[in-house]
Amino acid sequence: MSDAYHELARSFARMAALGEAGGMLNWDAQVMMPSGGAEARSEQLAALDVTAHEMLTDARAGELLDRAEADSAGLDGWQRANLAEMRRQWQHAHAVPSALVEALTRATRRCEMVWREAKPDSDFARVKPYLSEVLRLVREQATAKGEALGLSPYDALLDQFEPGMRAARVSEVFDDLAAFLPGFLDDVLRHQAAGPVPERPQGPFPQAKQEALAAQLMHTLGLEAANSRLDTSSHPFTGGVPEDIRITARWDESDFTTGVMAVIHETGHALYERGLPDAWRRQPVGEARGMALHESQALLAEMQVSRGEHFLRHAAPVMRDALGGSGSAWEPDNLHRLATRVEPGYIRVDADEVTYPAHVILRYRLETALISGDMPLDELPGAWNAGMRELLGITPPEDRLGCLQDIHWFDGGWGYFPTYTLGAIAGAQLYRAACTAEPGIPSYLERGDVSPLLSWLRENVHQLGASLSTDEILRRATGRGFDVEAFKGHLRERYLAP
Amino acid sequence: MSDAYHELARSFARMAALGEAGGMLNWDAQVMMPSGGAEARSEQLAALDVTAHEMLTDARAGELLDRAEADSAGLDGWQRANLAEMRRQWQHAHAVPSALVEALTRATRRCEMVWREAKPDSDFARVKPYLSEVLRLVREQATAKGEALGLSPYDALLDQFEPGMRAARVSEVFDDLAAFLPGFLDDVLRHQAAGPVPERPQGPFPQAKQEALAAQLMHTLGLEAANSRLDTSSHPFTGGVPEDIRITARWDESDFTTGVMAVIHETGHALYERGLPDAWRRQPVGEARGMALHESQALLAEMQVSRGEHFLRHAAPVMRDALGGSGSAWEPDNLHRLATRVEPGYIRVDADEVTYPAHVILRYRLETALISGDMPLDELPGAWNAGMRELLGITPPEDRLGCLQDIHWFDGGWGYFPTYTLGAIAGAQLYRAACTAEPGIPSYLERGDVSPLLSWLRENVHQLGASLSTDEILRRATGRGFDVEAFKGHLRERYLAP
Repeated sequence: MSDAYHELARSFARMAALGEAGGMLNWDAQVMMPSGGAEARSEQLAALDVTAHEMLTDARAGELLDRAEADSAGLDGWQRANLAEMRRQWQHAHAVPSALVEALTRATRRCEMVWREAKPDSDFARVKPYLSEVLRLVREQATAKGEALGLSPYDALLDQFEPGMRAARVSEVFDDLAAFLPGFLDDVLRHQAAGPVPERPQGPFPQAKQEALAAQLMHTLGLEAANSRLDTSSHPFTGGVPEDIRITARWDESDFTTGVMAVIHETGHALYERGLPDAWRRQPVGEARGMALHESQALLAEMQVSRGEHFLRHAAPVMRDALGGSGSAWEPDNLHRLATRVEPGYIRVDADEVTYPAHVILRYRLETALISGDMPLDELPGAWNAGMRELLGITPPEDRLGCLQDIHWFDGGWGYFPTYTLGAIAGAQLYRAACTAEPGIPSYLERGDVSPLLSWLRENVHQLGASLSTDEILRRATGRGFDVEAFKGHLRERYLAP
Repeated sequence: MSDAYHELARSFARMAALGEAGGMLNWDAQVMMPSGGAEARSEQLAALDVTAHEMLTDARAGELLDRAEADSAGLDGWQRANLAEMRRQWQHAHAVPSALVEALTRATRRCEMVWREAKPDSDFARVKPYLSEVLRLVREQATAKGEALGLSPYDALLDQFEPGMRAARVSEVFDDLAAFLPGFLDDVLRHQAAGPVPERPQGPFPQAKQEALAAQLMHTLGLEAANSRLDTSSHPFTGGVPEDIRITARWDESDFTTGVMAVIHETGHALYERGLPDAWRRQPVGEARGMALHESQALLAEMQVSRGEHFLRHAAPVMRDALGGSGSAWEPDNLHRLATRVEPGYIRVDADEVTYPAHVILRYRLETALISGDMPLDELPGAWNAGMRELLGITPPEDRLGCLQDIHWFDGGWGYFPTYTLGAIAGAQLYRAACTAEPGIPSYLERGDVSPLLSWLRENVHQLGASLSTDEILRRATGRGFDVEAFKGHLRERYLAP
């Protein structure tokens, strides 16, 4: 048994615990912290980041990895996978000089601040110089990582969020979808127009009642009260650690579906974290495989389960009673029609299941062109609007509804967008596979019982941690890698059903 | 200018930021964390502790201290004081082998858990073996620190909480008080019996109203909303950092004074932290001087200001209106009589200003005898009850009201108790000195304006951080060190006033 491996395991466990501390402080900053605490919080988070980064890039870590790899004969399969993940994390961290890490942190912080002011004014020109600096540094980072990993710059960025995924495959998947979606969207809108117009339940829906309902649904979906909290923040997210999940949402008293559906989406993320293998807690192999699978779990909970007709038969009366509603607007069929209403719009985070991929494909095409240098930053607003016309047939009237809407690029998150749609595809195919393996799942969902579905997901996705690649996990669970046809099949079934 | 000094300053700043992260996570554990998060939280806190402890006891830190001290000619007074504090912290940390630190952490965690079960059953025998192990390890720690610092074991413990304070001086102060208090208490009780019996405002007082009132008073006392939160926990405490203070309290709907006075007490602690010198943030010299001065600021806010007749003229109608009360019970004079009511009791944390020191003197006498080995642990319950009879004339009927009541010993906090009464003394003498320097303070307090008092405290206590010793700070501000006579004078004035 390799001593070097065990020393690495202890060291990664410490780094993970420091990372958990940072995650908790980040949750606190979004949810609890008084405004005056922001600067001190930055210092605390920076100290945690730098300390963990130094542990990972320390000369000792490199030596230990070499020795553990040379002496890996005595390791079992999970240990070997763990060692490979350690090396992967080390490569990503080691490739980037700390001066560049610091410069990126500073540049993204500044750019994000300017973006927050420029967005409401639709003032792309104001934020452009800051975004240009971020882009320059991200390119530098991408090039450095690409050289270390033997990848193109964009692939190196993508690999941070979805290990093993490459732009060539993303383009293939997205071109296929881009060819399918505009025609499909026309069909859906026509089909929808021929059917009944859903009634919208009338509010106001007091925030406290929405929160209680959302917490109840969170628990119904399998997240235990002893291991979770639900709070309010300006953007919904899932923080915390597997044993102590922190979900946040925002609440609209005139429309309860936004907040409640966001909580359900986040619950899907949370259930993945909850289901990761306990025996590998705080080890790289015990982490979630990547952001595409993470998103697949969120969208499985939201799109496949909670916007689906089966679960809504259970949830509709629960929602009605929790919010004190009455009448035909609360019928399961009506709420299902509402939850699957399709309408092209400018804003990604408000998009429905059918138009969402178009938003992602647009961003992917633009960010690859910006990283490669094929497109100058000046052309971004125009190219954005042209892409929206091509994919969704609408033109944003101003940049806050266009290229200024998402934080990702301003915050340094390049290479992340594709995981949303890869996750939608994987979510659809995993749900289909689960229902094939356990045909009783839909009828259990009608009774508000997720246990057969959750067991299947635990066994086929969550418990595997990062021991296999995303592709291997999908093939093992569904017989195929990312399967656009399964996703199209789901969309056709749901949106063109007679 | 010494490079070694500047490298130390950077390193201590990082340790401080990691410590702040730990403080925030501790607050979260008491206030926000779901029960399932406890074990993960322990891991996170342990990782932070070990990381900071390793930075402090690293060979490099010792070398840098030696070099910076040899090359300190170019340092200014504050820098030199900072270096001395760095050395002090290093000595305390370096003296104790990490195996002992770990053993203590494990033993106190176990002992505290058993204590939580044994206390409600008054079962000293159940927790005794665990407490015995804690005591053994604390003695070992005290001996190791004592050898490194040239102090007796008990002095080494005391020095952790109140640097520079020695048992010889504590005994002098406490013997003086112990000789004074029993006779004085008789006088007070006689005097009190001859006066009117205060009326108790009748509840219930809904928790939300109490919290709003407490927050209002917190702000009146000078703690800004942008830099603080008020939450609920099972034991009141002040957490957070100077820019982001986290106060907690518990609420009794039949008696608002407990919760509100606890918040005021904690606000005194918080104002000290808020007033520490910004320029020395995250440096040892920028920290609070010690726990006696810290307690003095809490007791100044609580005992001197908020239970005093002047501030109550402002606060009484504020309390009445916030809680929707009416009638003579809410008159300032009545609330003042209530806030200064004296009654010997078993429980330290419920004790009034006059009997509180007796509780502390008892614990001090017992813990010094236990640490020196003069008293075997078996004799603790009997010695406790004998001491209560001697000092307060009452005998606890069971150990949960006696030697099991406080967490400190079971949790490893030996040497801490004296700071409560040293703080009461310093609080009384600092308030007197402030009023001598600024005679308008009482009339400002009558109008709810703390600014002249707070300015004086900032200038004479808070802003000095740890640049001087406690004794120097007290002499500079009041002309004397810990001054028992000033405390007695305050007690006589308040409790025997005609």
